[in-house]
Amino acid sequence: MSLTKYLARNEKRHLSELKELLSIPSVSTDPKRVGAVKKAADWVAKRLKTAGCTSVKIHKTKGHPIVYGEWMGAPGKPTILVYGHYDVQPVDPIELWTSDPFKPTVRDGKLFARGASDDKGQVIVHVNALEAHLNNGGCPVNVKFLIEGEEEIGSPNLDPFIEKNKKLLACDAVVVSDTAMFAKGRPSICYGLRGLAYMEVTLRGTDRDLHSGTFGGAVVNPANALVEMLAQLKDSRGRVRIPGFYDNVQRLSAAERKAFAKLPHSDAKFKKAIGAPALQGEGNYSTLERIWTRPSLDINGLWGGFQGDGAKTVIPAEAHAKVSMRLVPGQKPADIEKKLTRYLKKIAPKSVKLEVRSLHGGDPWVAPTDHPAMQAASKAMQRAFGRKAVFVREGGSIPVVATFDNLLKVPCVLMGIGLQDDNLHAPDEKIDLDQFFGGIQAASFLMEELGAIAGEA
Amino acid sequence: MSLTKYLARNEKRHLSELKELLSIPSVSTDPKRVGAVKKAADWVAKRLKTAGCTSVKIHKTKGHPIVYGEWMGAPGKPTILVYGHYDVQPVDPIELWTSDPFKPTVRDGKLFARGASDDKGQVIVHVNALEAHLNNGGCPVNVKFLIEGEEEIGSPNLDPFIEKNKKLLACDAVVVSDTAMFAKGRPSICYGLRGLAYMEVTLRGTDRDLHSGTFGGAVVNPANALVEMLAQLKDSRGRVRIPGFYDNVQRLSAAERKAFAKLPHSDAKFKKAIGAPALQGEGNYSTLERIWTRPSLDINGLWGGFQGDGAKTVIPAEAHAKVSMRLVPGQKPADIEKKLTRYLKKIAPKSVKLEVRSLHGGDPWVAPTDHPAMQAASKAMQRAFGRKAVFVREGGSIPVVATFDNLLKVPCVLMGIGLQDDNLHAPDEKIDLDQFFGGIQAASFLMEELGAIAGEA
Repeated sequence: MSLTKYLARNEKRHLSELKELLSIPSVSTDPKRVGAVKKAADWVAKRLKTAGCTSVKIHKTKGHPIVYGEWMGAPGKPTILVYGHYDVQPVDPIELWTSDPFKPTVRDGKLFARGASDDKGQVIVHVNALEAHLNNGGCPVNVKFLIEGEEEIGSPNLDPFIEKNKKLLACDAVVVSDTAMFAKGRPSICYGLRGLAYMEVTLRGTDRDLHSGTFGGAVVNPANALVEMLAQLKDSRGRVRIPGFYDNVQRLSAAERKAFAKLPHSDAKFKKAIGAPALQGEGNYSTLERIWTRPSLDINGLWGGFQGDGAKTVIPAEAHAKVSMRLVPGQKPADIEKKLTRYLKKIAPKSVKLEVRSLHGGDPWVAPTDHPAMQAASKAMQRAFGRKAVFVREGGSIPVVATFDNLLKVPCVLMGIGLQDDNLHAPDEKIDLDQFFGGIQAASFLMEELGAIAGEA
Repeated sequence: MSLTKYLARNEKRHLSELKELLSIPSVSTDPKRVGAVKKAADWVAKRLKTAGCTSVKIHKTKGHPIVYGEWMGAPGKPTILVYGHYDVQPVDPIELWTSDPFKPTVRDGKLFARGASDDKGQVIVHVNALEAHLNNGGCPVNVKFLIEGEEEIGSPNLDPFIEKNKKLLACDAVVVSDTAMFAKGRPSICYGLRGLAYMEVTLRGTDRDLHSGTFGGAVVNPANALVEMLAQLKDSRGRVRIPGFYDNVQRLSAAERKAFAKLPHSDAKFKKAIGAPALQGEGNYSTLERIWTRPSLDINGLWGGFQGDGAKTVIPAEAHAKVSMRLVPGQKPADIEKKLTRYLKKIAPKSVKLEVRSLHGGDPWVAPTDHPAMQAASKAMQRAFGRKAVFVREGGSIPVVATFDNLLKVPCVLMGIGLQDDNLHAPDEKIDLDQFFGGIQAASFLMEELGAIAGEA
């Protein structure tokens, strides 16, 4: 039986296994979900064994566990390390989900659940690919899996693990599926990611909430002060006003601008897909350039005072914001955090107490597209999805990709099989089933292509 | 037995009755508390009867009921109408209360509970005063009570009730205790109140929350847009920037400025009492002038995006704020609401959808201090609290005071017996027991003084 036929015959089982994993609410940021995160780790370890890994281990960390598994039955052949994560984002606002985020539901050829695309659905395609090869004559490369449970909270224990286990993780290429294809029917390989600096800002005024009638006009209102400070983070042309923010930002090359301009992107369709009244961004850059290659700043959360129904006439004692910045090659999270903190201190009125905390950070990353592993991935995607793969960048962050670059010194292949409208981090997250099954093929073909390169070498 | 001796002997009972009323969680803005609000109305009606009112009725409205009671046993003598409210503010943030807001607790001579000072404790002093006179030779004036249950949500059904029942409510003076004395040991009569315009602002961007990595930099973030708009409501000198906001504002007279300057106010003590790092307000005005006579603008609530622990990398679909303005004589709530709405529409970016709703409004009010009823109140306060009463204004709003002025055409005496640090609308609201028992005396003496004026006339 051919590999392709085998995969077609196993689609039902692959879907039902994915549903099992998606039913586990492994929200890594939620202290109440520690048990569920552990359960997801156990599930992944067990599945690695049934897929054919000969050595599987759940490594404890200070936080959530890291699952490692390997099949090393192709001596002399190259070794790939598949990285992914089994933890997921929180689900609020829960009331906006059409179906329960942890009761995976197929509607219209799409599987809806938290983690469907980010990243449970995408990580499992590689496990299925290894199993398919092992059941059809053997795998053309050695395969290692490194599946962590803290990606959505900044992977605090992953870098130390990689540093300590360089030998265990030694490989010829890292493969990550945690991004989206350029479009349905438009396979792509991602060669650049933005980094992240995520901060929380708190302003405190008086030592308790005050009546806005009795005190309004004579005391500072931290909510007013906060909006005045946050309004100074960007100018009217969408540029970030933090002093030094753009220092060292790598400029976009003419070749890249030209390549991006050729991609079949439509601002009108993009706008419609997300239901935006209008697009808005930094001047002199196209939408793709803004998202992929330019740093940005967003308020991710804002709260203070009375949020209930009706009219509570209160001057809040505190006001809060979560502010994050996407970084591009040339920028360093620690440096940007310092610059934001210094700027906020400078513009804060003396009548409030300011606290700035760093919650999460990650380095930006960019890689050469002419590396043999990148080219092998491009061919595998073309075979699975029937069209030449394009090279693209991504606006999101996968901090570990920079770590692999720094610590393992091997190329990292970002072969995402999600779609742009997968609603990552939002209600109604989904994976398109064509992408899921096509992704299993692509992962299988990638193993073949990498095995063939080695043979040629 | 003298009235004073009678009051001293009944202190324990008066306290225990007040605790009963304070145990009822009559939060008028909370739909889940409808039953408790009704229970509080029933309690007040029953207490008016036991105090000696000969006619008591609970009037249904479209919202919470209005309790009316009267004792008209002094023919030929003047009639006072005591207005107050039995509803209370919400209690959140509940975790900042030292004891349960609905389990009244005495600590250090102070009774802590939601509504202790605003307004259950202050309204009940007049009921106790009537009862005291009736048990000690009769009351020197006729007394009517109008106790509503919707003051904290803008009294939507009170004005129509007053308009329909002008005859029932006919009187020679209205008496309201819903304000604070200037300071402990410094009795005062209030002759001016600020009005209110309370609005809710909503901005909507995309039709769902987006991943800030995948989209950050290319789409509008309503939270960023909201802080940018709200930051334009006031300038750096504390002046409101809404066009036309200061049109018609009555200027403070030289006599008032002089009188206020003589009051024993200390900015240092004021700052310390509320735990503010520094005071802040409109230039060229003193703290008392800012609070009592100048309009102000405060953000009362602010929310949007992720507010939980950790780092959720989301661009929120919506952001919200509650914004209220305190108004002074010359300003009208409807006019100010229109001006804010027009201004927000003008400064909103085209990439967001803006919604502005009016939640609550009330006219400002100011009265002549030389009216006989004002002078009678001043004497009653002096007798009860042992020091000459000063005439002051208040920063808060009691919209019904303007209604009494307009509809009943009689003077309104604001004889507050609360203190400035009563924590109105905030955690740990309390009433000082010296103020409560002194207030019952003052209310009794006011009835005597008003009866005496009528005798002289």
